[in-house]
Amino acid sequence: MNRGQPAIQGYQAGRSRERSRDPHLHRYAQRAAGMTASEIRALFAVASRPEVVSLAGGMPYLPALPMDSLADDMASLVAQDGMTALQYGSAQGIPELREQICEVMALEGVCAHPDDVTVTVGSQSALDLVTRIFCDPGDVVLAEAPSYVGALGSFTAYQAQVVHVPMDDGGLVPDALHDALRRLAEQGRTPKFLYTIPNFHNPAGVTLTVSRRSEVLEICAAHGVLVIEDNPYGLLGFDGQTYPALRASDPDNVVYLGSFSKTFAPGLRVGWALAPHAVREKLVLAAESATLCPPTFTQAVVSRYLAGHDWKSQVKTYQEAYRDRRDAMISALEQQLPSGCRWTRPDGGFFVWLSVPAGLDTKAMLPRAVTQRVAYVPGTAFYADQAGSRQIRLSFCYPPPDRIKEGVRRLAGVLEGELELLATFGSVSPRTVAGPQSPSPDTA
Amino acid sequence: MNRGQPAIQGYQAGRSRERSRDPHLHRYAQRAAGMTASEIRALFAVASRPEVVSLAGGMPYLPALPMDSLADDMASLVAQDGMTALQYGSAQGIPELREQICEVMALEGVCAHPDDVTVTVGSQSALDLVTRIFCDPGDVVLAEAPSYVGALGSFTAYQAQVVHVPMDDGGLVPDALHDALRRLAEQGRTPKFLYTIPNFHNPAGVTLTVSRRSEVLEICAAHGVLVIEDNPYGLLGFDGQTYPALRASDPDNVVYLGSFSKTFAPGLRVGWALAPHAVREKLVLAAESATLCPPTFTQAVVSRYLAGHDWKSQVKTYQEAYRDRRDAMISALEQQLPSGCRWTRPDGGFFVWLSVPAGLDTKAMLPRAVTQRVAYVPGTAFYADQAGSRQIRLSFCYPPPDRIKEGVRRLAGVLEGELELLATFGSVSPRTVAGPQSPSPDTA
Repeated sequence: MNRGQPAIQGYQAGRSRERSRDPHLHRYAQRAAGMTASEIRALFAVASRPEVVSLAGGMPYLPALPMDSLADDMASLVAQDGMTALQYGSAQGIPELREQICEVMALEGVCAHPDDVTVTVGSQSALDLVTRIFCDPGDVVLAEAPSYVGALGSFTAYQAQVVHVPMDDGGLVPDALHDALRRLAEQGRTPKFLYTIPNFHNPAGVTLTVSRRSEVLEICAAHGVLVIEDNPYGLLGFDGQTYPALRASDPDNVVYLGSFSKTFAPGLRVGWALAPHAVREKLVLAAESATLCPPTFTQAVVSRYLAGHDWKSQVKTYQEAYRDRRDAMISALEQQLPSGCRWTRPDGGFFVWLSVPAGLDTKAMLPRAVTQRVAYVPGTAFYADQAGSRQIRLSFCYPPPDRIKEGVRRLAGVLEGELELLATFGSVSPRTVAGPQSPSPDTA
Repeated sequence: MNRGQPAIQGYQAGRSRERSRDPHLHRYAQRAAGMTASEIRALFAVASRPEVVSLAGGMPYLPALPMDSLADDMASLVAQDGMTALQYGSAQGIPELREQICEVMALEGVCAHPDDVTVTVGSQSALDLVTRIFCDPGDVVLAEAPSYVGALGSFTAYQAQVVHVPMDDGGLVPDALHDALRRLAEQGRTPKFLYTIPNFHNPAGVTLTVSRRSEVLEICAAHGVLVIEDNPYGLLGFDGQTYPALRASDPDNVVYLGSFSKTFAPGLRVGWALAPHAVREKLVLAAESATLCPPTFTQAVVSRYLAGHDWKSQVKTYQEAYRDRRDAMISALEQQLPSGCRWTRPDGGFFVWLSVPAGLDTKAMLPRAVTQRVAYVPGTAFYADQAGSRQIRLSFCYPPPDRIKEGVRRLAGVLEGELELLATFGSVSPRTVAGPQSPSPDTA
């Protein structure tokens, strides 16, 4: 583990040396050229030290889970069904769980058949497989600006080109979507799909308004563009509210991605894709070559949990925990942050999206923030282009409310310091951290 | 579930209809063109009926596991470490397990550092990720003839071209490897890697002799070809014997793939890759875009199992169970099969490779075998070209010895019938099953 700034520099120098002497360099596929580690990963290694308040990670608040009762569950699962639960399963996932997943999706208006559900190794794997079956190198995909860092990672891995579409407080802007499609059409290009997170957006914290949902679907249908609806946070509305899934209105042109990582536990890696039948067939074949089958055991754990626990009440417990944390963060931001800062006010999910005054650079500022014992993800991580240098993603999902307040207090101090430098010298110090921008998506 | 031959035909017709009306057909990536379901999958659905003796699947014999003690383990894992074990983890895998994996590999002479180990979602995922980072469309990879069906699936998914290298009872033939590389060099082509299963080969049942190991490594090094060593069965030698891993002699030019699917349980999907440092960095980044991280929970289960159980004694139990089954199969083959048949005699692993007399076609024969209540995988599944029509893979890992004997008796009856037809009419009936050749790799 690195211990402070000098160690970080040592780490970077070490990595550069290693890269320059890689004897396999001539052997990699073209797609591997985009696979380079971000230097800000080293900062996150430092940020995991206990004295640092991390507002960077997207880890769910697991102390809310009933561990003792889960322990009993697990034991009886192995004792009663170990022979099946520890054996290979089908690439599509176990049938019981696929039926239960349909019941979960019904809460957001989705009417689906278990045959059209594919269980995946977290919804990240669904995203990877969807990109695998649709994207040739150079293909265009549309994504919100900003978008989920893990999705951008998958698109890059398959050499797709991301075109961002602006959002506002009501989510993706339909007019902007229309404009983007028109501009692409003028170039003779049709995107393979629109990737969208309609509810409690990561990282933006906003939700697509209900009236915009039909507009987005109509625009995509008119332009022959498939919709990938990523919905990990949909059940985490702080007032228990839900929104109609895009998939509910357009079963033939939407691939819906879901996950138990936020409503139950991420370490099980159980997600899913609901896809039109022919797409589902391709997905299963792609999944088979990727992992043979998702872990039978963790699927059985989720299935037993859904059948044997009051899981909706557990989701409510999560909602309440996250609402308290959201409240703590918003009130701390209001009290502490210097003028000129703006932020979103999420009604669910994990994240607040913060914009800082002009002249500041959130990526350049990160090492100083970590020195002041607070961590965040710079906005640049969430764009495929060079945008986001004045933005920050703050997550309130994991630390307790008092730690969130302390973290915001430290962040405010860092921002004040930067603004003073700016006022004195006309600019802050140049970037100290260069290179690729993505942090590890499991912390983002 | 299909119920016999008419149902199979109905299934095929239904699938063709669906395929022809896929409205997303114009959207798929080029690589998806190779992703088509095999019609023989329908036969395997029938073959899973209890009255059929399946010599097709590669499912480990899990009744050998101590389920009650595993149940206790699982409960204490959740109660004590649930907060960590159910949370996101690093893309590379949990450190404790990576250390233990080094101890496991030491049994075959591998000296490795945990930093160079990447835990994956079964070794299939390692295979997929290795192919992802090395293979552009059209790149050549070398593989034994025959080779593992799941590896061929991954190579196809990344549009690599497989060139097969012959084997004999001593495994891959070094002279043939040399010839293949020379022929490719004449075309100006260098394969990205040699994919090889040195121990208890799937499907061939043979083991690479010790003297050939250094020859294979030298030839690959001389031609600048990386070696991918896939070793899921290495600890399942029936006399407890092990062989030196290729990786042990050449750490810089071998990527070693391992798995707990056969030594512990496949439903956990825990495998790994040991790779030279720079390659490992790429692997972790590729893994991150594929799944964020492997399931923390199943990694913790394996780690606890390795630490808390006499796992080597459990491996011995497996060895003995599989030896009994191998003996049952070999003696049944000797007693029952018509003359002109030849088969390998494995000293470990799961599989016997059977060659039938000239004039027979094992894929065409499969529906008749299933009608006679015995299933196998036709040899064609294990080749990227059109070879294997006179071969059959028989697996002895799962059914008890008396069922194996009964299965071989039924298979002998089918072969006798085919040979009678051949003697009477000069040829057997034409193929009744056409189309792509791969069965589901989780049954193969």
